[in-house]
Amino acid sequence: MALLVVGSVAFDAVETPFGKCEKMLGGSAAHFSISASFFTHVQIVGVVGGDFAAEDKQILDAHDIDTSDLECVPDGKTFRWYGRYDYDLNVAHTLNTELNVFAEFKPKLSEKSKSARLVFLGNIQPDLQREVREQVTGAELVALDTMNLWIENTRESLLRTIKGVDVVIINDAEARQLTGVPNLIKAAREILSWGPKALIVKRGEYGAALFTKKSYFAIPAYPLESVFDPTGAGDTFAGGFMGYLSSQQTLDDAAMRRAMIFGSVMASFNVEEFGTARVQRLTHAEINERFRAFKQMTHFEEIPFERAVPATK
Amino acid sequence: MALLVVGSVAFDAVETPFGKCEKMLGGSAAHFSISASFFTHVQIVGVVGGDFAAEDKQILDAHDIDTSDLECVPDGKTFRWYGRYDYDLNVAHTLNTELNVFAEFKPKLSEKSKSARLVFLGNIQPDLQREVREQVTGAELVALDTMNLWIENTRESLLRTIKGVDVVIINDAEARQLTGVPNLIKAAREILSWGPKALIVKRGEYGAALFTKKSYFAIPAYPLESVFDPTGAGDTFAGGFMGYLSSQQTLDDAAMRRAMIFGSVMASFNVEEFGTARVQRLTHAEINERFRAFKQMTHFEEIPFERAVPATK
Repeated sequence: MALLVVGSVAFDAVETPFGKCEKMLGGSAAHFSISASFFTHVQIVGVVGGDFAAEDKQILDAHDIDTSDLECVPDGKTFRWYGRYDYDLNVAHTLNTELNVFAEFKPKLSEKSKSARLVFLGNIQPDLQREVREQVTGAELVALDTMNLWIENTRESLLRTIKGVDVVIINDAEARQLTGVPNLIKAAREILSWGPKALIVKRGEYGAALFTKKSYFAIPAYPLESVFDPTGAGDTFAGGFMGYLSSQQTLDDAAMRRAMIFGSVMASFNVEEFGTARVQRLTHAEINERFRAFKQMTHFEEIPFERAVPATK
Repeated sequence: MALLVVGSVAFDAVETPFGKCEKMLGGSAAHFSISASFFTHVQIVGVVGGDFAAEDKQILDAHDIDTSDLECVPDGKTFRWYGRYDYDLNVAHTLNTELNVFAEFKPKLSEKSKSARLVFLGNIQPDLQREVREQVTGAELVALDTMNLWIENTRESLLRTIKGVDVVIINDAEARQLTGVPNLIKAAREILSWGPKALIVKRGEYGAALFTKKSYFAIPAYPLESVFDPTGAGDTFAGGFMGYLSSQQTLDDAAMRRAMIFGSVMASFNVEEFGTARVQRLTHAEINERFRAFKQMTHFEEIPFERAVPATK
């Protein structure tokens, strides 16, 4: 298996100032896998209830996503999230969460899942993330996402899990909360000292940064005149990042930098419509066009200062 | 004259969590001109009081800054600003402002000042900015800074002034306040529709962006593990930007992009020590070294997506 993701598959209900959607496919593993599917072959480990219908599964099938380890609990209900965004689309207000079958989720990996080359541990309880990580012994690169809930309530377990992964993918508030260090550069250095080879900090409308022990890489976000629904942007970024890496033979700094751009490209499409709607119908031409736009908007010539005009008085 | 700046020359008193300085050279024109002096020949139009001593003037003289249009009111006092920063160094708390001779400041331009090729209208009352702009009829490029005070209290005058300049250099909160548009990309488009050829938005620790009608360029900030005193960072940025442009024969998009980097380089040095202390003793080698660091931290190869590894199941 090329790329494995463990995480939630959910039905989201989202209200924004621009519209409302009562039920759509969501959850970290769904956003991640649809995004990654443009670059590689993905397998999901997760759980859904008896209400996960043929048309829901069809969305994953259409992207050739392997759902053989997506467990179904026929008499249970799929995880549901109800959220609202006001005009500040950076802040999600959770109206209600029904964990349903996700409350008892224990990831079960088949032999095929365990053989994954790359693994993304979506935002779930860190004990569960670590159990999965310990089973994918041959993985070349394992990345992890987390959230404030686990930083506050299960900090020791989370730190143990972070020690065992290669890449941590979080947002700037989480990096500060995790370390207690307000300066992001210092916070990043501390997280890297725990073991991971790389830290990716997502900064929403300000872009994203990649920290390694030797190198720093930072990119702006794609400039969007309107953001419609930011739900899942972080997982869509991670899907583009890990999916692109999975398509590459060498997972070096240069590949990670390009993967950061592809992650940003995918996230920028994700927020243009509700849920996974825009990403679902993307083409490789559209993805590559926006990748090239990132080059244009960050390019400058490396000409050190020399006076071309005499500084006459 | 290569580059003219009109703005405040002040004595600042600053308290930060890391230290305290009771009196040092500050003000927009001082920060701007010392920064720009590394790239070009600068002239200041401003006003000081009888308390502006030989050692204060010596700082400007040492950078070959022309102070012949820096008016002195012998029986008046120089503008004083008292400010404090808490751990969030993005927010300056003004403890006290004594405008002194600056309250009655009327820029007086000599024939030499009026012949400037490039002009920076520092953050002063927009009527005064416009008066200056109307006198520098031969200028190739005129840039303007402003602040919330003028946006709130003298909006109509400010809009008239903006129509007459080539480049607006403000921060993101000011861009939103000026237009009433929360989305920065839309706000930028609106400001450009008023007349300026370019808008530069300073985003503090997130970097800066350059908007023109045809192009978008965005860069991260230089990653600093500690910020000591952010006072004057914006004017130091503008000084690096305008100073570098002034050294170039062609003021095209490519030169503006490099100027954005040099502006960011100068601002990153400025915040490392109190006031203008760090910038004062910079060398061109240090400036060029940090310029190259910007290239390294933003570089990625432009290779569109192609699968190097077959996406095997």
